[in-house]
Amino acid sequence: MPLWQIFAPEGAYTAEDKRALADRITNIYSDNFDLPRFYTTVFFHEAKPESYLVGGEPRDQFVQIAIVHAARTSEEVAERAGVTLEDIQNKFLELSHEALKPFVPDRGYETELHVETAERGMWNIDGMSPPPQWSEVEKRWAKDNKSSPYVSADQ
Amino acid sequence: MPLWQIFAPEGAYTAEDKRALADRITNIYSDNFDLPRFYTTVFFHEAKPESYLVGGEPRDQFVQIAIVHAARTSEEVAERAGVTLEDIQNKFLELSHEALKPFVPDRGYETELHVETAERGMWNIDGMSPPPQWSEVEKRWAKDNKSSPYVSADQ
Amino acid sequence: MPLWQIFAPEGAYTAEDKRALADRITNIYSDNFDLPRFYTTVFFHEAKPESYLVGGEPRDQFVQIAIVHAARTSEEVAERAGVTLEDIQNKFLELSHEALKPFVPDRGYETELHVETAERGMWNIDGMSPPPQWSEVEKRWAKDNKSSPYVSADQ
Repeated sequence: MPLWQIFAPEGAYTAEDKRALADRITNIYSDNFDLPRFYTTVFFHEAKPESYLVGGEPRDQFVQIAIVHAARTSEEVAERAGVTLEDIQNKFLELSHEALKPFVPDRGYETELHVETAERGMWNIDGMSPPPQWSEVEKRWAKDNKSSPYVSADQ
Repeated sequence: MPLWQIFAPEGAYTAEDKRALADRITNIYSDNFDLPRFYTTVFFHEAKPESYLVGGEPRDQFVQIAIVHAARTSEEVAERAGVTLEDIQNKFLELSHEALKPFVPDRGYETELHVETAERGMWNIDGMSPPPQWSEVEKRWAKDNKSSPYVSADQ
Repeated sequence: MPLWQIFAPEGAYTAEDKRALADRITNIYSDNFDLPRFYTTVFFHEAKPESYLVGGEPRDQFVQIAIVHAARTSEEVAERAGVTLEDIQNKFLELSHEALKPFVPDRGYETELHVETAERGMWNIDGMSPPPQWSEVEKRWAKDNKSSPYVSADQ
C-alpha cells in the first residue's frame, strides 16, 4: 500500500507509458511521505468501451482511479507536518494531479480518483505487520527497497 | 463516483446488455439522488470459471458487485429526505435489486453486492474537488453532463 | 463477502492452483468463523508485468491481495471469543498467511494483503439482507451452502 488501480481504455497506454506513470505515482509517496518505494503498487485494468461505461454510455476517454492507503493516515501526516487535515488532503490531491497530468488530462482523458483507507491492524507485507511509520525498520526497508524480518514492539 | 465494479462470468453479457444495465444503474442515482449522470461509472470484470471461485469452487452462475459511494453519504440523504438511515439503506438496496433484476436474478445468476464509502476530502474529478451536494454548480454539472471549472467556497 | 481479489502475474497459477488456493481461503472462514462457504468469493486478476508495477517497476514475482469483510467485524469476533481486537486481527493474519503459504511465499512471490470492512446495512445477497451473525438462518444457509428466503427481525 498504497495500491492504485487504474481503469483505462484498452490501448490507451503503452508499456513505457505505464512504467513512467507508475514511477511518477511511486515518487508521490517516496519523495513526500517517506514511503519505501516497493510499498506502492500500480495495477492497470484495461477494458473495451463496452465494458467501461460512464453515465450509462461507453466512454473511451475516461480514466478512473481507485486508491487504498494504509501506511500513513492523512491525520498522521497532517499532525507530523503541523498542518490541517484539509491542507494535507489538498496537497495529496495536487501531487496526484501533477503526477497524472501528462498521461491523463494532457492526453484528453477525463478522470476521477478517490482514496479509501485500510486499518494498519489488518495490513500485512510478506506475512509481517509492517514496521511503524517513520521507524528505523521502515527506513531500512526503504533503503533496501524490500521487506526483511524484524522484531515488532509487541513481541 | 458511484463506481460499480461488476464481476461477471465471461460471456454472461453482450455489449448491449452491459449498456442497458449500466443505464439502469446510472438511473438509480440520477432519478433518485440528483447525481450528474457522468458521476456513475460501471466497470465489468469478466473471468473464466477457473479465476472466479465461490465457496472454493468455480462458479459460472454468480455476479459479484462492489460499489463505492462518495457523492452522497447515506446519512446525508436520509437527513435531507427526513427518513431514517435504515430506510434510506433499504431504499437503495431495493433500487439496486430492481435495476439488476432483468440481468441478474431473472437470468438465473446468484449475486452479492456491497457498498463502501469514500471520504469527500479525498475525492477528485478532473483535478477538482467536486461541488457540494445539491449545489448550483452540481446542478450545472448535471445539466451539462460534464465537469467545468468553478470557484469552491474555500478558495 | 468475504471477497478476495488476488492480483497475480499472468501464468502464475494453473486452474488447479486457483481452485486449491480458493478452497484454503474459504476454509479460513468456514472453519474458524462459522461462515457459509458460499459467502467467500475469490477473484483472480491476472496481468502482464507491464500492467502490474511495484515501486515503479514491472514486477512478476508479486501477489497483491485486497480483501473486503462484511459478515463479521473483527470487533464482533473478538467479543464473542473473549479476546482482544489485536488478538483476533493477528489470528486472522496468521490464518491468511498459512492459507497462502504453499502458493505465495513458498513459490518465491512477495506479497501484500489488506482488509477493508463494509457496513452490513449496505450488503445484500440475492436481494436480501443476510441473516444475523450466528443466527439459525445463517446456520441453515451454511448447511445448504446457498441462500433461501427468510423473514428478518425487522419485517
